Amino acid sequence: MSLIDLSARDLLQAFSSSDPTPGGGSAAALASAVGTSLLMMVAALPKTRSGSDEDRAALAEAGAALTGVRAKLTTAIDDDAAAYDRVVAAYRLPKGSAEEQAARKVAIQQALRAATDVPLGVARLSAAALASAAVIAAHGHRAASSDAGVAVALLRAGTRGARLNVEINIGGLSDSESAKATAEELTRLCEAAARAADEAEALLRA
Amino acid sequence: MSLIDLSARDLLQAFSSSDPTPGGGSAAALASAVGTSLLMMVAALPKTRSGSDEDRAALAEAGAALTGVRAKLTTAIDDDAAAYDRVVAAYRLPKGSAEEQAARKVAIQQALRAATDVPLGVARLSAAALASAAVIAAHGHRAASSDAGVAVALLRAGTRGARLNVEINIGGLSDSESAKATAEELTRLCEAAARAADEAEALLRA
Repeated sequence: MSLIDLSARDLLQAFSSSDPTPGGGSAAALASAVGTSLLMMVAALPKTRSGSDEDRAALAEAGAALTGVRAKLTTAIDDDAAAYDRVVAAYRLPKGSAEEQAARKVAIQQALRAATDVPLGVARLSAAALASAAVIAAHGHRAASSDAGVAVALLRAGTRGARLNVEINIGGLSDSESAKATAEELTRLCEAAARAADEAEALLRA
Repeated sequence: MSLIDLSARDLLQAFSSSDPTPGGGSAAALASAVGTSLLMMVAALPKTRSGSDEDRAALAEAGAALTGVRAKLTTAIDDDAAAYDRVVAAYRLPKGSAEEQAARKVAIQQALRAATDVPLGVARLSAAALASAAVIAAHGHRAASSDAGVAVALLRAGTRGARLNVEINIGGLSDSESAKATAEELTRLCEAAARAADEAEALLRA
């Protein structure tokens, strides 16, 4: 059964169990999915900041973008757990003969690459949602400012959580060129996410 | 049906709908409940930081405290939505006669007080979980550092989200003494939460 089909209560139970998954990577994707959902709510409210057509058009566009982002973040909750399960399975492969050792090494590297790509995707999606948060802060109904503010806080947490998970996995990658490129993209994404979050919060206070 | 009995997928859907609840207050409680669950997981791992009896004892104590905190945060997910529904219902009460106006005013104040107390409780619980996070960072298995780091990020987001929800509701309280006392407690809680989060993160990097 996929994690997102569990009840919220059972999902919390799964996060607290000592089984390897779900762990922080799935939790980061969930945090960003909840934050994105709150932004979709503000975008869908009948009231806007000033009641203008411009507000309505900006919110409709942001809402459509967020719907796609939320779908991908929701998928990432399960993808992260599956990717980490493959890392654990790869480490458990037999290493008796030289051939087995070589095959195990390849399997570990492939699994670590996938386990890096899922949280890297979560960082990308969180940065995209935060870019929309700034639009929603500028055009959304003022009465929903606290909801948008909570959304920004959750997306900051999702971004930070994704970063921690990318960093721990690229540490094990033997392809140092690829690890370096990933680390650089991650830094750029986190900087863009932080700037968008700051901008959204400034607009929500204005 | 309670929110925590919904599937995670349906709960995300509920957060994104334009219905008044669930909103940011429930999302803040959920964020802290997920963060607390990840800390419980690290506390329950068979391996500890140094393998000492001291680690094991500290983690067992922290794990027990977190189990209680998680149960209350889980309840708060639904409580926040119910409290906000009561605020909305109070504002919709008839206000034709002077008597109706007086009764509506009392109902609004009672509902706002309850809608303040739920996120105030979430801030308290998040601060308590972050105090345990520092213990877990000091004694937990190093391989789970990223999980503990994600937990801290989620609990920061839950604290911030709770703060935004307390602040928006105390703005409407007519009892200024009570509003002032609540604002002061909130400030203290958020400061304690930030200190504990900083301490936990420093230990995780060490």
